[in-house]
Amino acid sequence: MKVITILGAGLSATSLINYLLQHSEENDWHIKIGDIDEQLAKRKINGSKRGKAFYFNVSDDNLVEKTVAESDIVVSLLPARFHFVVAQACVNHGVPMLTASYVSKEMLELQDEAIAKGIGIYNELGVDPGIDHMSAMKIIDQIRNTGGTLTAFFSSTGGLVAPAFDDNPWNYKFTWNPRNVVLAGQGVSKFIRNGDYKFIPYTQLFSRIIPTSVEGYGDFEIYPNRDSLAYRKTYNLDNIPTIFRGTIRRPGFAKAWNVFVQLGATDDSYIIENSESMTYRQFINTFLPFRENESVEEKLINLLPHLVDEEVMQKLHFLEIFSNKTIGLPSASPAQILQKILEDKWQLKEGERDMIVMQHRFEFSDSDNKPHIKVASLVVEGESKEITAMAKTVGLPLAIAVKLVATGKVNIPGVSVPVVPELYQPILDELETLGIVFKEEDL
Amino acid sequence: MKVITILGAGLSATSLINYLLQHSEENDWHIKIGDIDEQLAKRKINGSKRGKAFYFNVSDDNLVEKTVAESDIVVSLLPARFHFVVAQACVNHGVPMLTASYVSKEMLELQDEAIAKGIGIYNELGVDPGIDHMSAMKIIDQIRNTGGTLTAFFSSTGGLVAPAFDDNPWNYKFTWNPRNVVLAGQGVSKFIRNGDYKFIPYTQLFSRIIPTSVEGYGDFEIYPNRDSLAYRKTYNLDNIPTIFRGTIRRPGFAKAWNVFVQLGATDDSYIIENSESMTYRQFINTFLPFRENESVEEKLINLLPHLVDEEVMQKLHFLEIFSNKTIGLPSASPAQILQKILEDKWQLKEGERDMIVMQHRFEFSDSDNKPHIKVASLVVEGESKEITAMAKTVGLPLAIAVKLVATGKVNIPGVSVPVVPELYQPILDELETLGIVFKEEDL
Repeated sequence: MKVITILGAGLSATSLINYLLQHSEENDWHIKIGDIDEQLAKRKINGSKRGKAFYFNVSDDNLVEKTVAESDIVVSLLPARFHFVVAQACVNHGVPMLTASYVSKEMLELQDEAIAKGIGIYNELGVDPGIDHMSAMKIIDQIRNTGGTLTAFFSSTGGLVAPAFDDNPWNYKFTWNPRNVVLAGQGVSKFIRNGDYKFIPYTQLFSRIIPTSVEGYGDFEIYPNRDSLAYRKTYNLDNIPTIFRGTIRRPGFAKAWNVFVQLGATDDSYIIENSESMTYRQFINTFLPFRENESVEEKLINLLPHLVDEEVMQKLHFLEIFSNKTIGLPSASPAQILQKILEDKWQLKEGERDMIVMQHRFEFSDSDNKPHIKVASLVVEGESKEITAMAKTVGLPLAIAVKLVATGKVNIPGVSVPVVPELYQPILDELETLGIVFKEEDL
Repeated sequence: MKVITILGAGLSATSLINYLLQHSEENDWHIKIGDIDEQLAKRKINGSKRGKAFYFNVSDDNLVEKTVAESDIVVSLLPARFHFVVAQACVNHGVPMLTASYVSKEMLELQDEAIAKGIGIYNELGVDPGIDHMSAMKIIDQIRNTGGTLTAFFSSTGGLVAPAFDDNPWNYKFTWNPRNVVLAGQGVSKFIRNGDYKFIPYTQLFSRIIPTSVEGYGDFEIYPNRDSLAYRKTYNLDNIPTIFRGTIRRPGFAKAWNVFVQLGATDDSYIIENSESMTYRQFINTFLPFRENESVEEKLINLLPHLVDEEVMQKLHFLEIFSNKTIGLPSASPAQILQKILEDKWQLKEGERDMIVMQHRFEFSDSDNKPHIKVASLVVEGESKEITAMAKTVGLPLAIAVKLVATGKVNIPGVSVPVVPELYQPILDELETLGIVFKEEDL
């Protein structure tokens, strides 16, 4: 019998737990689920004899060591900053570990120890990062293996609301951590286009839009997503002339969001005095010039005349940002206040479902130097409040990877991400049987 | 005999040293000047029998203690981050200390110890901060003492080039630390206008311009300067409806500078790969969209059509930013590259002189509730390469304060800034005799 321990029983754990419990009988697995909220872990097991919930607190060093020592495999779904503590214990005890999060710098430092122990620390096994790597590498390897040369690679993902519930003027609802959505894109975004470096500051980001569409799902727009340059190394594309990663939204989102960016309303670096008693209208007015004879609306239009058109104004009115509603948050930053305003309006309501959209575009020449463009698109809709598109696309590739490791089919000692065929191929194959299927199109 | 020790013999030390040496005979002072470059300190003494240069290294704890122990008064002109080390030694040995720099948080923590020892740690005794505080408080106190109420206070300063040498299209040359000029305004600027908080993000800063003029010197423009809110406490203006601090430039500067801000060319947070061999033109192009059929100039105009007019384009051409000159700086940030480009063009040449402009505007009602507006303006031009306007306006108020403390006319135990009449009145009076005179105007 193998003991598979899952740390963290939050939203993204549901599909993972369900999958592992379903496969536990045939593989003789015992699934232990630890969470600081033991009852939550218990509910996720849903009475299965193969599962066991336990109290887990990552701050308790002895508990971490004991938990890892009693496991054959550990999956961490804890907040990303805690993965390292678990990974260190896993390396100490020679236990393989899997996460859906980005490899951190400190995680990389475990490389030699993990190799010495012969165990794998597998990261970025969710959707983004995760499915994006696997699906991209599959096609990149196909192009290479048939003698082709990739000249441009675009890869974009978005977490959105499913079309049936897409009923507000932003065509957007929160389907994941709202704070990350409010702060998205701060800093600089970097990519390469036709051999030229491109550095896009935050305040230009939301006006640098690429339109796209997905069959059966209509039009979308893409804005640049942080550091695309780092992916040259990940995908072994050191000399590629064009590499771009983006975030997907419905058309018109970026232009309206840009109003908040230009105003400085997404700034999280300072606290607004008296924010608790301030109204939404006063909040917006703090970013506008003083003019005695103009309303807040007029001042906004006059400050950003090329941004605030009728459509944008409609989106802003939907959020009631010009209303006299009270903020009610003490000592809050602009970003925290904006998040509060948005949470009231962009909430995914009971019974509503989310959607993940991913699209890659490959421009390459084949072995005869003929140019080609291939587009691969994935859309996954959520099934229920628990089985969201996000939970499925994060949890299922991770679960399949756990199975591969637990059954001995895969063993990659060291700190890795899923860019090798032995990992991506079986995961993508099985994801297809679970309805997570890329549609490929040759343009 | 009193020993007055000056630590740091850099640019801003010249006027201070000259003043103290001139007054050393009559007051029986011995002026010791310590610098890591002992020869530099020696040159500044210029053969005076009252002065003595010595090697000083602030990293040598024993040397700091010994130096302070042998002094009656210490003036620190070291880089601001070193003031605290000196201040701690001064408190230990019961020696008063003076600086021209902002009070740091750690400096404030010496408050109780300094009071217990009965010595003053006097800060912000230069020009900005320094003369701005003193000249503003003088008028604020006048208004209060005659029963008036201040309703609005605007205070702005700029380091510029003297009119006779103002010969480039930016009407600007570097007269102080170029790095600080390139990074100026990053973060958020805060002020209050008619009772409303105003928060201006960096990317809006250079379009929020207030025009002004100074008799005999023509027109200027003002953009907001960081956190004006903090000055409510400094000036005891807790409930003032309007308080604003600004930076002064010649008209048109902010609009053209805003091009670099909007592009992200002032970003100091990341390194550009291969910056050494990149050309100026390629550098600008990294911030522009990829378009096969447009030149860099066309792309810039199309990206920022409301900013890049003919006048702005003329300023940009003056900097040769579209040329194929090589940057030549390895692993540089955008801000470092931009600084290098500017240093070539905004250099104050041999024989050219600088200028400090300061202007306060006070809106108040008198004891009969009649409204008034008073404007106080100061212009100081440099005299030579050594006796710059900056060196004079930083060094002279500090030197006068040293005299006041050394002669026992002033003793304010604790950590202070010059907002009390016993300090600002004699300093401003003597500055007038040295040609540093505010012109007051009632509008």
